[in-house]
Amino acid sequence: MTNTLEWTGSSLKLIDQTVLPLKERIIECRSYEDVADAIKTMKVRGAPAIGVTAAYGMVLGAMGIETADASAFMQRLNYIADVIKSTRPTAVNLFWAVDKILTVAQQASKTSSVEIIKEAMQREADQMAKDDIEANKAMGEFGQVLLNDGDSVLTHCNAGALATVGYGTALGVIRAAVAHGKKISVYADETRPFLQGARLTAWELARDGIDVTVIADNMAGYLMRNGKIDKVIVGADRIAVNGDTANKIGTYSVAVLAHHHQIPFYVAAPVSTIDKTLPDGSYIPIEQRDPKEMIYVNGVQIMPDDVKVINPAFDVTPHDYISAIITEKGILYPPYNIMNIDA
Amino acid sequence: MTNTLEWTGSSLKLIDQTVLPLKERIIECRSYEDVADAIKTMKVRGAPAIGVTAAYGMVLGAMGIETADASAFMQRLNYIADVIKSTRPTAVNLFWAVDKILTVAQQASKTSSVEIIKEAMQREADQMAKDDIEANKAMGEFGQVLLNDGDSVLTHCNAGALATVGYGTALGVIRAAVAHGKKISVYADETRPFLQGARLTAWELARDGIDVTVIADNMAGYLMRNGKIDKVIVGADRIAVNGDTANKIGTYSVAVLAHHHQIPFYVAAPVSTIDKTLPDGSYIPIEQRDPKEMIYVNGVQIMPDDVKVINPAFDVTPHDYISAIITEKGILYPPYNIMNIDA
Repeated sequence: MTNTLEWTGSSLKLIDQTVLPLKERIIECRSYEDVADAIKTMKVRGAPAIGVTAAYGMVLGAMGIETADASAFMQRLNYIADVIKSTRPTAVNLFWAVDKILTVAQQASKTSSVEIIKEAMQREADQMAKDDIEANKAMGEFGQVLLNDGDSVLTHCNAGALATVGYGTALGVIRAAVAHGKKISVYADETRPFLQGARLTAWELARDGIDVTVIADNMAGYLMRNGKIDKVIVGADRIAVNGDTANKIGTYSVAVLAHHHQIPFYVAAPVSTIDKTLPDGSYIPIEQRDPKEMIYVNGVQIMPDDVKVINPAFDVTPHDYISAIITEKGILYPPYNIMNIDA
Repeated sequence: MTNTLEWTGSSLKLIDQTVLPLKERIIECRSYEDVADAIKTMKVRGAPAIGVTAAYGMVLGAMGIETADASAFMQRLNYIADVIKSTRPTAVNLFWAVDKILTVAQQASKTSSVEIIKEAMQREADQMAKDDIEANKAMGEFGQVLLNDGDSVLTHCNAGALATVGYGTALGVIRAAVAHGKKISVYADETRPFLQGARLTAWELARDGIDVTVIADNMAGYLMRNGKIDKVIVGADRIAVNGDTANKIGTYSVAVLAHHHQIPFYVAAPVSTIDKTLPDGSYIPIEQRDPKEMIYVNGVQIMPDDVKVINPAFDVTPHDYISAIITEKGILYPPYNIMNIDA
């Protein structure tokens, strides 16, 4: 299995998710600017993967600061944090990870030299990467009880190994169910415009030998009506205290369709995805991306450049449509009031 | 405006809808085989356009029969009718049009020479082409009362001039509303996998100066939730007696979303789309098309060839989700029992 990300000690290697699965290209980020660019252009994507990538971006940024003065170092580090945070607005894991590294640096800066601060930051990023995989496996164990042998599961976008350091959130639950000997068939929404489902979910599940069928996003209702979908599982980019969940554009439509057909709709995400500062989903900022992502598919134009399009990257699914939220600390059921979970 | 189809007297010119809007290529069908191929490969598509194209396919087929014996002629013509009917299974207009031409030939064959039969067939096809545009304009006049000044209307696939001989069914209603001085904004589902919305609906509405925005199919729910959609109008490929409607894959998902958000959902189609032999939509055959249409977009591969996909071309929207059916004879409201309309 090719890793989503790999820290070499002096650079961060990423598998370029814009060209998968037809090409497996590894890019190497040697500066925080490289990392910021990789996040912004979606070479790496998926809330948990963005979080850990950003953490290593902070480490690379720190490595590039050539001062021995802790205060000057911290000032420069805060600037780098702002640059990295400005790459994408919706996934809260980005801010959570950058702030976590910043706090470690802040703490260390009170007593330690710049070299020691840098080491502490790198240790923290390594720990976050390790924790991410462990959290996904714990999430998988908790969540797999919701899936039955023979279930056909619909997922949207890619909430898999490629959206995390490894194993995946929504796909981690499916992997855990399969590991428990359950036969699971997966339907993957292709997920326009970026085609994460067609390109990434299909690729990583097929490599694991898990049965996967790609559908156009508009086929989900047809399958549900015909009794082909038993459960829906998706990931999340930000979850408000009341359970409202921002995830890839189209998730809300799937949630309404599942609700209408009385099909359980599950969200799987680490607790770092929960934003305790937001009472509900109306406060979650929705990223609007470049229209070109709609007009060009894999570099090939499908509409004239002057066609008017919209390209919201996410939507918010209100908590009423969510049957359960699967985290590494356990499964949450409605009514959601997620103040009492530690991230 | 480039015509969907144009009869030259000895051939049928079609605008190749597989390459629009980036190329405007005219193809010329000189035999019924050319016509059958154009329908099968979707160079011409849209139920009413398929119907009239098939009628001219019959005329071209008749022209190629070199016998003066009316009985031998009719035998050969029946074979040609079967070939043309076998191109696509769902749109009933195809069968309706071929049978109509066949009936005219059958009638004429009782008393007339083969040359006279051929002339009668051609006159009938010309009349069908003329009737189609007139039906669409009548449909538009009836339907436009359902749209208010300032409405934002979602449509799926292309039920426009390009899906008919001209003017369009669903888009004809929008054109009529605009002609009545109403300001209408259109959201067009791009409509994977064939992208009829992105490629055809956007092209023809922009040429008419009607405001149009292309969205990914998975964005419809997001827009509805945010109050951006006032009405939905789509076309139809076959309507059962109880109002159940087969239309482009994804229509059912849009109908459920509209229902959930209490947004009126209208079907616009000529009465030739109504199949009086079918009590409900469960009897409508759903065409399953080549997986390659999912895997390649405009000739460019987006997934490996061995990825499992499905590619149903249509789905059935049950009548409970349809607020009204707009025909050239008037607007039908629930409960539908469409036995008493003449096609």
